[in-house]
Amino acid sequence: MNEMLHPIVYKNRVLHVLDQRLLPEQTVYHERTNAREVYQSIKDMELRGAPLIGIAAAYGLAIHAFSSLANSPESFDKDIRQAADLLAQSRPTAVNLFWSIKRILRCVRENKEASIHELKEIIEQEALQIHHEDRQICQSIGEHGLSLLKPKMGLLTHCNAGSLAVGGIGTATAPMYLGHQKGYQFRIYADETRPYLQGARLTAFELKRAGLDVTLICDNMAALVMASGKVNAVITGCDRVAANGDSANKIGTMNLAILANHFGIPFYIAAPTPTIDPHTPKGTDIPIEERPAEELRMMHGRSISPEDVSIYNPAFDVTPHELISAMITEVGIWYPPFDEKIASLAEKGISRDQK
Amino acid sequence: MNEMLHPIVYKNRVLHVLDQRLLPEQTVYHERTNAREVYQSIKDMELRGAPLIGIAAAYGLAIHAFSSLANSPESFDKDIRQAADLLAQSRPTAVNLFWSIKRILRCVRENKEASIHELKEIIEQEALQIHHEDRQICQSIGEHGLSLLKPKMGLLTHCNAGSLAVGGIGTATAPMYLGHQKGYQFRIYADETRPYLQGARLTAFELKRAGLDVTLICDNMAALVMASGKVNAVITGCDRVAANGDSANKIGTMNLAILANHFGIPFYIAAPTPTIDPHTPKGTDIPIEERPAEELRMMHGRSISPEDVSIYNPAFDVTPHELISAMITEVGIWYPPFDEKIASLAEKGISRDQK
Repeated sequence: MNEMLHPIVYKNRVLHVLDQRLLPEQTVYHERTNAREVYQSIKDMELRGAPLIGIAAAYGLAIHAFSSLANSPESFDKDIRQAADLLAQSRPTAVNLFWSIKRILRCVRENKEASIHELKEIIEQEALQIHHEDRQICQSIGEHGLSLLKPKMGLLTHCNAGSLAVGGIGTATAPMYLGHQKGYQFRIYADETRPYLQGARLTAFELKRAGLDVTLICDNMAALVMASGKVNAVITGCDRVAANGDSANKIGTMNLAILANHFGIPFYIAAPTPTIDPHTPKGTDIPIEERPAEELRMMHGRSISPEDVSIYNPAFDVTPHELISAMITEVGIWYPPFDEKIASLAEKGISRDQK
Repeated sequence: MNEMLHPIVYKNRVLHVLDQRLLPEQTVYHERTNAREVYQSIKDMELRGAPLIGIAAAYGLAIHAFSSLANSPESFDKDIRQAADLLAQSRPTAVNLFWSIKRILRCVRENKEASIHELKEIIEQEALQIHHEDRQICQSIGEHGLSLLKPKMGLLTHCNAGSLAVGGIGTATAPMYLGHQKGYQFRIYADETRPYLQGARLTAFELKRAGLDVTLICDNMAALVMASGKVNAVITGCDRVAANGDSANKIGTMNLAILANHFGIPFYIAAPTPTIDPHTPKGTDIPIEERPAEELRMMHGRSISPEDVSIYNPAFDVTPHELISAMITEVGIWYPPFDEKIASLAEKGISRDQK
């Protein structure tokens, strides 16, 4: 656990971004000194993971605020909104991004009396607070999630909803890390997660580094691993949960949910409440990002398929709520039906918005 | 269709093996001049695909026969058996390999009166006959399979059960090729098929080359593609069908069968009868080959995961017969229950063995 790598470090108004595309071979941090650079880091997937994208966007706005030359509240406000618009365009699916940006903009709106200098400090404090809260969310998700698990269980996870995707001990990985601390001896199976291989490059990397028992498999091996009784629960992260509980997550997650359902294995989603979007009614309303064909076609700069073949490269799929056994949130375990809990969260969210 | 690449060419007692590991980047044939080289070609997956492995092994025995220095029937017989034992160890799962080797050995047994010189010719003729029959099987599978399909259907396939896996127009691909000739305008989805990427490197390659409309996806995208209504049928090959209809095929096939079942999409297996093994009662009796971890860990000579992470790399899984809508054999379409048809095949097989 001591060796946990930080996916981002904010220091002296510079965001140091660990380039996750180079892991596990190289550990390289890039210095991002303005909002456009942070936007590019998110878009190019130097950093990824719904919570981390939100945190990075908040820091991007803080950095932008400090570098703003605006000398009137109106021009400062306009300046921040422009940066917010840019950052919001970096990735379309994860809702944390928009949640985090809105939260910063609300700060600006709620502090109309503050000087520009004070506003800059307020924005930075809010970004730091978002990051801090995220670490606490991970801890709580870990504790609640662990209550669902028993020692020596086999756990399957997909993509990276780990410490490299968030501020703390990850979301889907949080119960794994806490269980490991308590000697639970989980056997973790990590899907490699094509095409970007976040499972191979990141999840296997960070769990192994922390001393957990992790076995890497290809995505298409999950059915066999489940059929042979090696998996007692599936835990994944999520990028956006709709009001009815339908959950967008890394492509391949729906696949696992269907398999788990077939084999009678519980399928859990680790869902921090900032990832829950009560304003999106259902899964089909969630925009699914299509990524460039080259991400699928190329590997280490060389082609793995004929250059002229059509490629479909959706980055996410949406798991229907019926296939989700429970959601592990920082406020507790939610069992179906999810819509009621999400609606009640929305009410609290509205009161929070109005505070 | 004119541009179809031949995965093996037997000429002047040399087996020219297309090194499929180098496709689609390079088209390289290796000359294999003895049984050990053929064994190594199969083991190292220069060539693959259940039918092709069987054909190559038969040619391997023919080449070995011609190079034999044995000067008594007994020593010749022993010589051939040694080569057969070696070739039988190349891959454990596909039954065609054993079927083909047994067929050659039966020839030797049934021609005890022949001279060694004549036996060599007989073995070569039998190998050529196995290859020839395989091309005819592909054609028949194509015709029967096409009867299940309609123009403009979306078809999903896995791995490569195409012309590169067999002697003719493939097995799972046979209805696709024949439909294409008739202007059916199928939309084919090819799973890339990790870890060896036979779908990306071979299926997408050969279908595109033949002018079919093929879209490459990652294995974990199949659920989304099915959920969005783009797939009307799944057709895969198989490496061994047990007596109850359980079918071993490339890892990830069971995954697709479960998904197809979930979405109410027909799941077909193209099953040449030499792939059917009435002597193996059920799926759990089929040995599943585990391949080296490096096949999963390495890509283009570079690592995609931490070097010290455990890896599980099974090459096949077994689809339970309940999930198979129909088997497309060269003798017609088989609907469940499969065990009766397979038992009747076994009876015919026994009479053939005794002929």
